[in-house]
Amino acid sequence: MPKITVNKDVKDLNQQQADKNRALFSECGVFVINIIGSPGAGKTTLLENILPRLSKKFRVCVIEGDLATDNDAERIRKANIQAIQINTNGGCHLDAFMINKQLNAIDLANLDLLIIENVGNLVCPTGFDLGEDMRIVVMSIAEGDDKPQKYPIAVLNTDVIAITKTDLMPYIDADIAKMREAIHSIKPQVKVFETKKTSAGYEAHGLISYIEERVNAKTI
Amino acid sequence: MPKITVNKDVKDLNQQQADKNRALFSECGVFVINIIGSPGAGKTTLLENILPRLSKKFRVCVIEGDLATDNDAERIRKANIQAIQINTNGGCHLDAFMINKQLNAIDLANLDLLIIENVGNLVCPTGFDLGEDMRIVVMSIAEGDDKPQKYPIAVLNTDVIAITKTDLMPYIDADIAKMREAIHSIKPQVKVFETKKTSAGYEAHGLISYIEERVNAKTI
Repeated sequence: MPKITVNKDVKDLNQQQADKNRALFSECGVFVINIIGSPGAGKTTLLENILPRLSKKFRVCVIEGDLATDNDAERIRKANIQAIQINTNGGCHLDAFMINKQLNAIDLANLDLLIIENVGNLVCPTGFDLGEDMRIVVMSIAEGDDKPQKYPIAVLNTDVIAITKTDLMPYIDADIAKMREAIHSIKPQVKVFETKKTSAGYEAHGLISYIEERVNAKTI
Repeated sequence: MPKITVNKDVKDLNQQQADKNRALFSECGVFVINIIGSPGAGKTTLLENILPRLSKKFRVCVIEGDLATDNDAERIRKANIQAIQINTNGGCHLDAFMINKQLNAIDLANLDLLIIENVGNLVCPTGFDLGEDMRIVVMSIAEGDDKPQKYPIAVLNTDVIAITKTDLMPYIDADIAKMREAIHSIKPQVKVFETKKTSAGYEAHGLISYIEERVNAKTI
């Protein structure tokens, strides 16, 4: 492809807006999480299952990013959480401007935790800071244990990885220990949590406790 | 984000090169397939399993697109198929120029079938024609049956969808009939095939027969 150098400018503009978003969130005492993962990695299912517990302790709002439909916002609203849907109409990631545009619909002064679910894509969203305090990359074990090596930028640019759908382990060729090792060979300090469906519901205790800890550290 | 209108130019330039690629492939009698899907949808596993049968009838070469590693090309080479790895170093899709650059490493005059496995991404690759005759979008049933509606451009821009990992059906909340219906409500003429692992190996007969038919129609 002939060289077109717009990419750096786009990212610089985004970074300036992300810094402004971050300053505003800090001023209002809002902790912000940006959730990134492939289509079907289990991002919305994770949210549906951790929100009931998080919303007992914190005032929570969710922004959902999707190419099309407001299915995901609808799913979140069923848990009685405010959810705002952004449709990118084909756009492959959210950016800091899109987030900023939604903020007048959110009562930031009466909010503790804003969770943004990015467009399903393990590549493009990783390069766009939204002003978040913490990023969670969601990788389903059903995607295979080689995904960290094949998408190293996703690992390098995150704090936390949630390995989802570990209840499928008996039925697939994938090794969680190998996946953890691959993650830590790229970035040793990434916190890794596993989540799964169980007969009792959905297990994500480690991840929920870690989020609570981080939100408390900022907002209390 | 401030309006930046480079996108159309990038796509126009790509389309011009894709048309040149397509003309060259036609001149040489090579049928070209572009495979698109999320990370971990099962694109390489599909290839590993359909190549042994296809290579009995056709002279085949594979181009693998990945952000990093040459794991996938290595997997294909184990089946004694020529495989060329393109690393995009963070780039979210292949384009027609990247494909053209590799063509001097391929003996087009003695080839029937070129299969290109795109970068794992259900969004960006869908907008970039590579000069292919046929596109296959791979969606794993483990990603959930709502993926066609949430990624409609992937469906609109393809001929064929392979629903992979259907052996996982008993263990997940997803409905293949619902997924097929969603696909056909977006684009009725898409051919849908299912593939799965079985105790006997990997089942993809319908898809393989359809590819054989299409390749024969062009190359014989």
